[in-house]
Amino acid sequence: MRAYDLIRRKRDGEKLSAEELEWLIFSYLEGEVPDYQMAAWLMAVYFRGLDAEETAHLTGAMVRTGKFLDLSGIPGVKVDKHSTGGVGDKTTLVLAPWLAAAGLKVAKMSGRGLGHTGGTIDKLESIPGFRTELTIEDFLSQLEEVGVAVTSQSFALVPADRKLYALRDVTATVESVPLIAASVMSKKLALRTDALVLDVKVGKGALAKDLKMARELASLMVDIGKRAGRKVRAVISDMEKPLGRAVGNALEVEEAIATLQGNGPEDLVELCLSLGSQLLELAGLAESEKEAREKLRHVWEEGRAWEKFKEWVKAQGGKVEAVEDPSLLPQAPKELVITSPDTGFVEAVDALAIGEAARILGAGRERKGDPIDPAVGVILEAKVGDWVERGAPLARLRVREKGVEEAEALVARAFTFSAQPPPPKPLIHEVVS
Amino acid sequence: MRAYDLIRRKRDGEKLSAEELEWLIFSYLEGEVPDYQMAAWLMAVYFRGLDAEETAHLTGAMVRTGKFLDLSGIPGVKVDKHSTGGVGDKTTLVLAPWLAAAGLKVAKMSGRGLGHTGGTIDKLESIPGFRTELTIEDFLSQLEEVGVAVTSQSFALVPADRKLYALRDVTATVESVPLIAASVMSKKLALRTDALVLDVKVGKGALAKDLKMARELASLMVDIGKRAGRKVRAVISDMEKPLGRAVGNALEVEEAIATLQGNGPEDLVELCLSLGSQLLELAGLAESEKEAREKLRHVWEEGRAWEKFKEWVKAQGGKVEAVEDPSLLPQAPKELVITSPDTGFVEAVDALAIGEAARILGAGRERKGDPIDPAVGVILEAKVGDWVERGAPLARLRVREKGVEEAEALVARAFTFSAQPPPPKPLIHEVVS
Repeated sequence: MRAYDLIRRKRDGEKLSAEELEWLIFSYLEGEVPDYQMAAWLMAVYFRGLDAEETAHLTGAMVRTGKFLDLSGIPGVKVDKHSTGGVGDKTTLVLAPWLAAAGLKVAKMSGRGLGHTGGTIDKLESIPGFRTELTIEDFLSQLEEVGVAVTSQSFALVPADRKLYALRDVTATVESVPLIAASVMSKKLALRTDALVLDVKVGKGALAKDLKMARELASLMVDIGKRAGRKVRAVISDMEKPLGRAVGNALEVEEAIATLQGNGPEDLVELCLSLGSQLLELAGLAESEKEAREKLRHVWEEGRAWEKFKEWVKAQGGKVEAVEDPSLLPQAPKELVITSPDTGFVEAVDALAIGEAARILGAGRERKGDPIDPAVGVILEAKVGDWVERGAPLARLRVREKGVEEAEALVARAFTFSAQPPPPKPLIHEVVS
Repeated sequence: MRAYDLIRRKRDGEKLSAEELEWLIFSYLEGEVPDYQMAAWLMAVYFRGLDAEETAHLTGAMVRTGKFLDLSGIPGVKVDKHSTGGVGDKTTLVLAPWLAAAGLKVAKMSGRGLGHTGGTIDKLESIPGFRTELTIEDFLSQLEEVGVAVTSQSFALVPADRKLYALRDVTATVESVPLIAASVMSKKLALRTDALVLDVKVGKGALAKDLKMARELASLMVDIGKRAGRKVRAVISDMEKPLGRAVGNALEVEEAIATLQGNGPEDLVELCLSLGSQLLELAGLAESEKEAREKLRHVWEEGRAWEKFKEWVKAQGGKVEAVEDPSLLPQAPKELVITSPDTGFVEAVDALAIGEAARILGAGRERKGDPIDPAVGVILEAKVGDWVERGAPLARLRVREKGVEEAEALVARAFTFSAQPPPPKPLIHEVVS
């Protein structure tokens, strides 16, 4: 086999076989196929795509370059959840302990990621003392004892994904649906949970800007999972506007705590119920979505999700006092209020603009390895559909020195108004199974 | 400027500026832009293309990475000719001395190239003693004294083209019209002749399989030349069937000699007259194509082209006796005759199949640096439109041991027959100026 032929054939829109993709991935990882040939192949894939079968074969080959993390020794149903990323997405912080309280074992490897705010790992690290680099042994024992364990992706289960992602990142080949699907699913398959739910975001603040792309990504990922014998569903959820009110690392932890205590924003609660009920059904702990939702509500209303959260924080070395009294979380020195220039209904809040503002204030990183500021970010005081008077607060910016003016302007422009209440839009577009 | 942005923007179909292309090419040559980013960019160009302006800017940047070869010290009109390559294309061997005999100074750097037979340089090297690596001094003095000098591309006038071509060759990005145009024209612009004619082949045995691609390539190249202030025209000529009757290095030299002596195949003579008359007009040595053709015919019929050929061979160290008596050129040990399975008119002779057969016999190389066998090849006994009886010879194969059966089968299949004479097809499709 020659890399040249695989590049040329993909360039010409031909389909590659399982053997060819296996050869390509292993030869690349071993350095026999150089970066420049892989870069050309990736760009050809960007233009020509991979069909469901090719994507599944690619993913399988990537998984086989590494190790599986076997969870079969742990009693109970092990589950995992993945989000393609959005602005204000603190779902894992709420859902992981909630599901654990409902009797599932929630095992998750998570990234730091680039973007508007940090990833789940960065958010967790804004809790003083929270350790995010667990050994495999600690991860497994915590999963068994506490029912929830989240660690950064330091096990390096899928070396081919690391190497490929680093190359895609510098060759403008990240934005390819099948390559995204293969990357996500290779990591999900390497961690051998029993059931998996995927939160595929769609809208301005998401990777998938339209429903077509979100459906394609969701279907490909579900298909890969099924071909590998996994129980998997995807939920396509809205990301036109930020999720909840808080955008920023410690700010999102604080909102997650409020949600676990019963005082969270409606959209975040609803998303947790949607994703969680899919997993409960997949895990066989509920017969129907309705039953699953009722079970989850019950666990939440009894305060067991919140108790589990504290137990989890403690298990990973986090200061429980800081989550009981969020004023002990990192705090920004200054707050600025953005007020409404108009009287009317809030018609839209541009998720991308809010996310950009948070990043500019220091909540996110532009380059791998950049530090993030856990304290800064944006708190929305008005959400889509709210009636606001001129001069009323739209958002609060928690700031240090960095990027204040630019962020202010972005947040102010993110809001649009109308005289009529905007038509309600669904939070959940569809479930792909 | 960041390579990433230039890849992404080209991937998204955006137009790059002169400054951006200049930066990209120089940064690549200096190693600041790595091969993997350039490979991704080249593949994005394969899919998105470059417009005429971008292609001209790219070519200009490539030329500026190297040196110009200044011919202004040499009296007379300096001209150059380029062919995109075809099966049986020995035009340079005939046309270069012919034009020199007509009063032009023919300066040409040529490649060895890959393909069905060797390039012009390989063909010339089948003449015993012929030196193809001239020093710049020898090249210039021979051009002045003899009026014709052909050398291999060892002056390395355009280092960016060498580096880019090597990368394209292993990343399946050779087959891009703007990249082909930029590569050809960068070398043509570095050699500062006064007028240039481009022979763009179209058909089965050519790079351009259809007239659309040939036109695109011809127009881009002419446009690049004009933007650089050069006098340039392109002739789009047929390559459905081989040119002339001989395909193979020494065999083509022998056919070139016959043509210079007045006994050549009609199509080759006609192509030389077409290309040559364009150059004579551009050089101001004729007022019209008609006048140019008459001048060329006169020179030819007086035997001055043939005399100039011998003078040229002698100047570059070649054995004049071997061109006066072609039996002294390299000879294959065996000849096989392919006979007609049918009685009828020859409807088509597939140039690609004949070219492949020649390559398989050893006349061409698959990989850079492979040796070629100067003696082997194919001689067509029947051309398109000829009436043949069953059992009559269609072609003679000059062979050593290599690939004989495969070549026989290919040549046999290359011929198709019909009861009616096939409609005549033009040798010259159009002139682009």
